[in-house]
Amino acid sequence: MKVVMILSGGMDSVSLMHYLVSQSNEVHALSFDYGQRHRKELDCATKCAAALAVPHKVINISGIAPLVGKSALTDNIEVPHGHYEAENMKLTVVPNRNAIMLSLAYGYACTIEADALACGVHSGDHAIYPDCRPEFIEQLSTALATGTDGHRNPKLKIIAPFVNIDKGEIAKIGASCGVNFSETWTCYEGGDVHCGKCGACTERKEAFRDSGVPDPTEYLA
Amino acid sequence: MKVVMILSGGMDSVSLMHYLVSQSNEVHALSFDYGQRHRKELDCATKCAAALAVPHKVINISGIAPLVGKSALTDNIEVPHGHYEAENMKLTVVPNRNAIMLSLAYGYACTIEADALACGVHSGDHAIYPDCRPEFIEQLSTALATGTDGHRNPKLKIIAPFVNIDKGEIAKIGASCGVNFSETWTCYEGGDVHCGKCGACTERKEAFRDSGVPDPTEYLA
Repeated sequence: MKVVMILSGGMDSVSLMHYLVSQSNEVHALSFDYGQRHRKELDCATKCAAALAVPHKVINISGIAPLVGKSALTDNIEVPHGHYEAENMKLTVVPNRNAIMLSLAYGYACTIEADALACGVHSGDHAIYPDCRPEFIEQLSTALATGTDGHRNPKLKIIAPFVNIDKGEIAKIGASCGVNFSETWTCYEGGDVHCGKCGACTERKEAFRDSGVPDPTEYLA
Repeated sequence: MKVVMILSGGMDSVSLMHYLVSQSNEVHALSFDYGQRHRKELDCATKCAAALAVPHKVINISGIAPLVGKSALTDNIEVPHGHYEAENMKLTVVPNRNAIMLSLAYGYACTIEADALACGVHSGDHAIYPDCRPEFIEQLSTALATGTDGHRNPKLKIIAPFVNIDKGEIAKIGASCGVNFSETWTCYEGGDVHCGKCGACTERKEAFRDSGVPDPTEYLA
């Protein structure tokens, strides 16, 4: 199967890439530069794709910044610390971000006549990010199929293999597929080393702890 | 009602803008620079928005060009002449274009807490552009509402006031709302004057002829 996937450079999407390759798919990875502060993830995406010889494009959509409002991920607002489920983590929501990236990637999947478009959303994101929930993925897949009906591959579907498992389970799958987690990036701060305190780092630490997969990450705290 | 709308600078979306303003809506217009050859439409969009004092942003998404494949609208392929329904007009399909622009505009509508997102698709486009059909608009509206649930305005809807009427009817509505059609741009060629031969020009001419609205357009042929 020919699969386009969205590769952020984080442990979920890198694990997804390894998993899809392990299942004998022809994988094409896309990353989006939307002006995120944590640009290090784009370098990680490039490195991880190259390690698997997966064709990879980084698409610059930073011109859309005025549209999606202020978010701690792109603007000079302090990144909230603590756990994702807390109310203040909503500051890290870029409205409609997944729909934007999935719509763009779907256009690409049409162009290269792929069979599926994959993304690495998981159950731990459901509480805070509505665009990581299974019903959103299904509804968007239906809508985009309708909008491109008859164009090259009318059966193109959006798939989210990890949508019903949590980050700990993803760590186990990634480990079993040979992911080098030290080359993945999670932190929302713009530093050189994972901060260890932001919501993303908190969940990364928990995923390793819960799964028993060794955590190779260097944290500031 | 606060309405975000997609303004291409063509007669349909300019008529839509006038219509929405005539209905006492607070209108915010967005145009997308996606590397189209017919860039003159962006100048028309800017001029027409300014004439109504409608706030207007032109968003540069030309970085996405490698994703959406070869199309006569963006690449150096000859623009097909004749009627839209002909098979060769499929060359003017940029796959998933409306989903991409609507997803971006929806993010903006969330950001500014708008009540609706409007686009000027019409029944004449249904045959050739699947992303101009009512079922696509409804399905995408549902999906994006699910994906942004709880974010500022959960009731935000995509509306397409012209989806069940044709371009001739739009010309009548535009004329009744005071549109200056000489400041709208339709042609897919990159010229200074409407070519009069491409599919877009053919339908423009027909819309004026069928509706009886005077056509102020200068055509090459």
